Amino acid sequence: MRIALDAMGGDRGLTPAIEGGLQAAREFGTEIALVGRQPEIEQELARHDLSGVKVSMVHASEVIEMDEEPGAAAHAKRDSSIVVGIHMVKSGEAAAFVSAGNSGAILAAAQLYLGRLPGVRRSALGTVYPTLHGRCFVLDVGATTDCKPEYLFQFGVMGSAYATGVLQMSRPRVGILSTGEEEGKGSLLVKEAYQLLKASPLNFIGNIEGKDVPEQLADVVVTDGFTGNVFIKTSEGVANLLIQVMEREIKRRPQAVLGALLARGALKATKASLDYADYGGAARLGVNGIAIVAHGRSSAKAIKSAIRVAKQAVDSDIIGTINKGVQ
Amino acid sequence: MRIALDAMGGDRGLTPAIEGGLQAAREFGTEIALVGRQPEIEQELARHDLSGVKVSMVHASEVIEMDEEPGAAAHAKRDSSIVVGIHMVKSGEAAAFVSAGNSGAILAAAQLYLGRLPGVRRSALGTVYPTLHGRCFVLDVGATTDCKPEYLFQFGVMGSAYATGVLQMSRPRVGILSTGEEEGKGSLLVKEAYQLLKASPLNFIGNIEGKDVPEQLADVVVTDGFTGNVFIKTSEGVANLLIQVMEREIKRRPQAVLGALLARGALKATKASLDYADYGGAARLGVNGIAIVAHGRSSAKAIKSAIRVAKQAVDSDIIGTINKGVQ
Repeated sequence: MRIALDAMGGDRGLTPAIEGGLQAAREFGTEIALVGRQPEIEQELARHDLSGVKVSMVHASEVIEMDEEPGAAAHAKRDSSIVVGIHMVKSGEAAAFVSAGNSGAILAAAQLYLGRLPGVRRSALGTVYPTLHGRCFVLDVGATTDCKPEYLFQFGVMGSAYATGVLQMSRPRVGILSTGEEEGKGSLLVKEAYQLLKASPLNFIGNIEGKDVPEQLADVVVTDGFTGNVFIKTSEGVANLLIQVMEREIKRRPQAVLGALLARGALKATKASLDYADYGGAARLGVNGIAIVAHGRSSAKAIKSAIRVAKQAVDSDIIGTINKGVQ
Repeated sequence: MRIALDAMGGDRGLTPAIEGGLQAAREFGTEIALVGRQPEIEQELARHDLSGVKVSMVHASEVIEMDEEPGAAAHAKRDSSIVVGIHMVKSGEAAAFVSAGNSGAILAAAQLYLGRLPGVRRSALGTVYPTLHGRCFVLDVGATTDCKPEYLFQFGVMGSAYATGVLQMSRPRVGILSTGEEEGKGSLLVKEAYQLLKASPLNFIGNIEGKDVPEQLADVVVTDGFTGNVFIKTSEGVANLLIQVMEREIKRRPQAVLGALLARGALKATKASLDYADYGGAARLGVNGIAIVAHGRSSAKAIKSAIRVAKQAVDSDIIGTINKGVQ
């Protein structure tokens, strides 16, 4: 299996991307096609031992910067590493594309050049969400802002396929994000989607509240792209708030500084368990091909993790599963 | 000023309610009318020194339990402490009503018996939200699930009045919860409400993302009741998750247990700064009278805090301000 990796993407540039790519090639035995400016890639590769790994290069002269307007950039920069990588998936030269670059542009390019799977009404952006007991999968977190009930139903199908194939869950519990546990709680949209999900062969468990997602009462959390985006960003904001307040309170107290030193491992593990880098990115589901977004502040570890996700998505034939589920 | 206090409400029963009420009567000089079963109130009052406080009793034979269906209970239990207290506001016998009881029933009774203010399209449930630098006010967090742009505009007016009058903020910055900072980001609902808010005399600062609310980039956060409810419950869930993960990680490490002991003050202060009890409850805005919901797990301190909120709402003539703003 060959996976196309954007060598140019990410806030930290080529170094972690290539390091993560080579680690993945070695560990998973997949071939990695590094997409980007060939001279820069060659220079970086020269610093690595390439024995026993399958690695190739595909030149792309342009780079979509992190702050570019996603839709316009995906449209205009036809020779960017992102657009070239997506085209490799389309043509079958690669089984999947992984990038830590401008996430909006990756998603826009996937939508633009891969197109939607037949039968899929709208695509969704899904992300792995850390919980107290492991992780769950939340979608849509921002691809389709205004949804109809049928879209949410299909998000349930796609999320369930992802949780089964990539997260290796068996019969994942699908919940719909709402304002109360009971059937009948929530917006008109949620109430109608509830009925569609209930009538489906999915393992649908009903409504789930925001406070219960971190307890992992559901393995797949279905929501519209507006609410999901607020949900994911609020989670990030509150986690940061708590850590900042704690650091401030510790600094205020001399004996607490010593305490924090002793508890450093525990504090670090707490931060790590909520670290998105560990979980290997977001995926655009519903498009005709596999495109995985690694976190923008990506370390080599996050890149490797995103490549593992891509590999599992291919191995589990997630595209085929979604295809069947939405018919 | 006389404030009606539900003596029966709250998970912990009469004791904290009456203790908080008496503290407030002493500290703020307001008269407190204790609403509930007179024999039980008398028994509890006998344990307190009542010199110098203005306290009265209003008998109500029924109690709406915490787990009752709110709408049905508010309708059926006409002689419950909640319904009797709300009627005291309607008739002018009390300037405001405070309860730590079944929050849904309090809100339903306020809607049912006080009615909406003329010109207000939908009422909203607002709540104070702890931030890194203090607090902001978020509405709607669950009263009106399906909204139109005009409702959100009016929520901005009501939230701004509350932030000014009760939270004593000058020219509070009003933001609308969305999926990106830039104008044009968000759902159709948000985009239309954005234009209405922009054209208003409010201090409107545009979109605010979930991750930025804890940074207090806005003092008033406007959102529909569905998204707001998800927002507030997600905040609660993530805060709990972090604290639980931290406690688990500390227990795993012998030296971290000692560290946590030394850092105990800091950890406690962190929890406290995210403690809803400190902030004095939620308010139903847009109804023709003041009804404040104290937290259900209310301590005497939370009750006192909710009474202070009620007093400030009366003192600042929040009803008059909203009335003017929505015309």
